[in-house]
Amino acid sequence: MDGTRVFLANSNQHINIGKEKHSRNGFVYVKNPHLDLMEEDILYHLALGTKTHNLPAMFGDIKFVCVGGSPNRMKAFAQFMQKELGHEGEDNDLENICAGTDRYSMYKVGPVLSISHGMGIPSISIMLHELIKLLHHAKCCDVTIIRIGTSGGLGVEPGSVVITDVAVDSFFKPQFEQVILDHVVTRSTELDQDLASELLKCSRNDFPTLMGHTMCTYDFYEGQGRLDGALCCFSNEKKLEYLKRAYNAGVRNIEMESTVFAAMCRLCGLKGCSTIKI
Amino acid sequence: MDGTRVFLANSNQHINIGKEKHSRNGFVYVKNPHLDLMEEDILYHLALGTKTHNLPAMFGDIKFVCVGGSPNRMKAFAQFMQKELGHEGEDNDLENICAGTDRYSMYKVGPVLSISHGMGIPSISIMLHELIKLLHHAKCCDVTIIRIGTSGGLGVEPGSVVITDVAVDSFFKPQFEQVILDHVVTRSTELDQDLASELLKCSRNDFPTLMGHTMCTYDFYEGQGRLDGALCCFSNEKKLEYLKRAYNAGVRNIEMESTVFAAMCRLCGLKGCSTIKI
Repeated sequence: MDGTRVFLANSNQHINIGKEKHSRNGFVYVKNPHLDLMEEDILYHLALGTKTHNLPAMFGDIKFVCVGGSPNRMKAFAQFMQKELGHEGEDNDLENICAGTDRYSMYKVGPVLSISHGMGIPSISIMLHELIKLLHHAKCCDVTIIRIGTSGGLGVEPGSVVITDVAVDSFFKPQFEQVILDHVVTRSTELDQDLASELLKCSRNDFPTLMGHTMCTYDFYEGQGRLDGALCCFSNEKKLEYLKRAYNAGVRNIEMESTVFAAMCRLCGLKGCSTIKI
Repeated sequence: MDGTRVFLANSNQHINIGKEKHSRNGFVYVKNPHLDLMEEDILYHLALGTKTHNLPAMFGDIKFVCVGGSPNRMKAFAQFMQKELGHEGEDNDLENICAGTDRYSMYKVGPVLSISHGMGIPSISIMLHELIKLLHHAKCCDVTIIRIGTSGGLGVEPGSVVITDVAVDSFFKPQFEQVILDHVVTRSTELDQDLASELLKCSRNDFPTLMGHTMCTYDFYEGQGRLDGALCCFSNEKKLEYLKRAYNAGVRNIEMESTVFAAMCRLCGLKGCSTIKI
């Protein structure tokens, strides 16, 4: 085990995956040879499955997936999409497709899927594994996924929107360390630059919009320099010094899901972007 | 930053905290000198605060806190406690105390608090920071906290209950690595042994109950050796070899919250235990 930890610290021994291109004819793909051998694939935390649901019929037309932490917000976003797409009359009462579980909530409005992911890397990671399999089973093509939400800002005006160019960890590195069994694998966290630029162009004058790095931490209090957790052993000066270093490294906002989101989108052919309000 | 990573890998340079005893006259305590200087403490993710709520009046009598991932299950547990404590007639419709947010759900039945924590270390960690502050502000004394839930078992009969003696990480180490700003601090994950023994004695003949180590991972699929995620790069043999090593290290079940739960309970004077059904 110590060997693995040294392996962790010694970056030239890292296994680097995630350099692949985004396209495989535009399909969302899985990277798991075992799935082909399975008779049934149960998406436990979404309360869906390949034998119990006709996934291509239910989801085959999906082109956009929007994800965010809070179930209420993702329902509100779906209602907003109903208005925007003129689907209001058809189905006023949005049905939570994942009603069979209370882990996540999911709503579909035409080609748009709106899903909650809870808080933190492990929670969004479970959802992304099952969402990617869902899109794969449904034979979805050219899917864009956008993380929407709120976060703490760094040297930017409150009310601004930060579009993430790259997600970085607590050490300002553009990488996500995935533990696979007891091996640590480093994955790239660069997001789709064309999509980010396109979204930046969509910004209006209502609020400032900028592109920047998003820092992703495993902890809301001690990890993000907050002085009001149950535990805090650093001074205000130490906190400011750290946040200044983050700013100088290009970080403009801090949240808890972006590194694994970026890493998994890259690996599975999803054009991903994160747009977060401060 | 590289220095920090080497620091991470080199265990004799670890900062070790968490060796303190559980008692400070039995009170739940915070370890944060900044809190005393704050006029108001807002527990954002619980939708509670020291100025908006009379926390001692609302929670001062709490002696037991039960936490689990799913909001529905924690409501069902509170309803079960109503029956067990004969509180049924008084307040049949349980009120979700955190109804002002959809991050967590909380129910109170006499001296018992039942709270959901979502999935994964970051999600339970936010809840624990705010719960510990709540119990501290409410001047609660001699509080026992029990994590209840389900998990994957390792070499134990399905339907068994595993009482955790110590939580270990993916490398079978009894520790939790907390990132504080960009420093990594190692915390002990031993749970209250007296409480664990007491709970073991309460077990009945309905289902097998045993004590063992609980392994806590950051990931449900690649981290726990599952072959059915969107990503999987290991063989069935490699998975079994890892799980066998885990079993030989004393691991009897695998979940996603126990290390930070154990670490934070130890640090803040909460007698903590985890009882998980397989």
